[in-house]
Amino acid sequence: MTVTVALDGMGGDAAPEIVVAGAALARERRPDLRFLLFGDEARINGLVDQHPGLAEVTEIRHTPDAVAGDAKPSTALRQGRQSSMRLAIDAVRDGEAGAAVSAGNTGALMAMAIFVLRTLPGIDRPAIASVMPSKGNPVVFLDLGANVECSAEHLFQFAVMGEVYARAVLGVAKPRVGLLNVGTEELKGDGVVRRAAALLRDSDLEIDYAGFVEGTDVTAGTVDVVVTDGFTGNVALKIAEGTAGLFTQALKDAFGSSWRGKLGYLVAKPALQGLRDRFDPRLYNGALFLGVNGVVVKSHGGTDAVGFASAINAAVDFVSQGTNARIIDEMGSVTTDDAPKPQAANG
Amino acid sequence: MTVTVALDGMGGDAAPEIVVAGAALARERRPDLRFLLFGDEARINGLVDQHPGLAEVTEIRHTPDAVAGDAKPSTALRQGRQSSMRLAIDAVRDGEAGAAVSAGNTGALMAMAIFVLRTLPGIDRPAIASVMPSKGNPVVFLDLGANVECSAEHLFQFAVMGEVYARAVLGVAKPRVGLLNVGTEELKGDGVVRRAAALLRDSDLEIDYAGFVEGTDVTAGTVDVVVTDGFTGNVALKIAEGTAGLFTQALKDAFGSSWRGKLGYLVAKPALQGLRDRFDPRLYNGALFLGVNGVVVKSHGGTDAVGFASAINAAVDFVSQGTNARIIDEMGSVTTDDAPKPQAANG
Repeated sequence: MTVTVALDGMGGDAAPEIVVAGAALARERRPDLRFLLFGDEARINGLVDQHPGLAEVTEIRHTPDAVAGDAKPSTALRQGRQSSMRLAIDAVRDGEAGAAVSAGNTGALMAMAIFVLRTLPGIDRPAIASVMPSKGNPVVFLDLGANVECSAEHLFQFAVMGEVYARAVLGVAKPRVGLLNVGTEELKGDGVVRRAAALLRDSDLEIDYAGFVEGTDVTAGTVDVVVTDGFTGNVALKIAEGTAGLFTQALKDAFGSSWRGKLGYLVAKPALQGLRDRFDPRLYNGALFLGVNGVVVKSHGGTDAVGFASAINAAVDFVSQGTNARIIDEMGSVTTDDAPKPQAANG
Repeated sequence: MTVTVALDGMGGDAAPEIVVAGAALARERRPDLRFLLFGDEARINGLVDQHPGLAEVTEIRHTPDAVAGDAKPSTALRQGRQSSMRLAIDAVRDGEAGAAVSAGNTGALMAMAIFVLRTLPGIDRPAIASVMPSKGNPVVFLDLGANVECSAEHLFQFAVMGEVYARAVLGVAKPRVGLLNVGTEELKGDGVVRRAAALLRDSDLEIDYAGFVEGTDVTAGTVDVVVTDGFTGNVALKIAEGTAGLFTQALKDAFGSSWRGKLGYLVAKPALQGLRDRFDPRLYNGALFLGVNGVVVKSHGGTDAVGFASAINAAVDFVSQGTNARIIDEMGSVTTDDAPKPQAANG
């Protein structure tokens, strides 16, 4: 299956360079990929030509407009109709591309994705999902910030989408799904998580609901999918990033602090390389906008070509596995049964 | 100033051993410490005698009752009146001890602390505060789980208490206080954090309010105090713990994975020792119940003697600096001004 990916050529700190170089890298894994690349043609043309073969599979569509990194979503929606970000999403709506990838402004990208593509049947609000490393298998974690306030029904929908994602894209046969809470006992947490737990427990979907999990369970890999509201999820993701960064820096400092540290590092370097690869944040780059009626992936704004290629890969895998169709199927069996009806959400 | 610390001899995974050994270690730093030690005398007596000089400064008070680690707070309150935990808190109320330290059930300890000691004037709800390592100075982080749902006024009170703690105990001359949010722009987050921001901005207290901060700011040390609700704070703390544990384990695995790794570790060991010390969770052990009218410190249940000694140290430093009196002063100047009145809280 040939997938065409629409790329926001102007989104991110180091665009368009990393976008073009990332596309070239993604092609190494999937040589049949094709790209629609939106942005400043004068800047992009020369970059594409630096990568052999890329020009043949890439259609550049010129636009002078780009969404500013600090633009409000509402402003971007109003004024960004010809922006590289918006045109990439429009290409998904028009069936010209199977997915859109952008390293630009997250809020603007989500607003445009919802406005242009709408949500999947049965889904009230899309969530941002990412894959995080753990002691065991990688863990699907959502919502990472699309919805600062969530109802129990929203969390239920996130759980269904995360479960399908783990099955379809990560290939987990029977993903275990946990709700993030301050303890594992049934009475912990506020009314929203407790009601969401009841919805998951009582649902006749074949979801392997594992109950409440705590922050430590995310990295422990106790479950395959961790569901939370966008406020907690965003903070959690950034705390994890910050802690990882703190350790990495401190480890570098320790190795550099003395001749013994430096020598020890050189000796142990091959062993440490595996560690670096395992936690390389670039390999986990690419957050899915789950629940959008189309495939949109957000790359970290500060990533490089390797990271941007990961985001493209995430989009392509999502499309290839027909993930959205599976989510629609799953939500369809909720809404046609006498199980909790998301459209009646009032929490 | 001689401080007497009431110890819950039976709380924690490895009590009473680590409690007694922790007390002995804390005495090395502060030889003038005295202890009231509650628990099973038959088990404790012999342990105390293993540490020279400890028996002379320790009064053991026998009680056969202990609060179970999985007891509900309400049950512990009702049935635990003669428990080692409760008697330690009673000793603070009765002026026999300046502080109580327990490695037992957090919910039970908080419920008992509030029931027995009440809250400080101007404080509606106590918060759990801990000190976390960062790239810069250690950061005071609260609430870590006492209040899963918070109003803006609660967050405001947490900010005041955290600021006083950073000044009094950590010795930061002018602590910068941030509100945890999903972004730094004023319009980010839900109504509660935005109202809390307004309370802090408009207050005539001399608090150096730094605005919204994100998860990455906690480890970056952007501010000295980070305030959030107990749900987010609990998840954040455990995500940080989990991420640190994941890295530590992966680093050990990497060093152990080959002869080069093992050799490199041996060579670099002295350089890595500093790293280990800097992030040793035992040295950050001891969470303060800020806002309780008395000093109660919760030790991690799974800690060892070194960690328990840190919790005792945290309690002693808090008492020595007259921190609660300073919080009362600070809150008093809120409630007598025309600034936001916490007692009128309705958020």
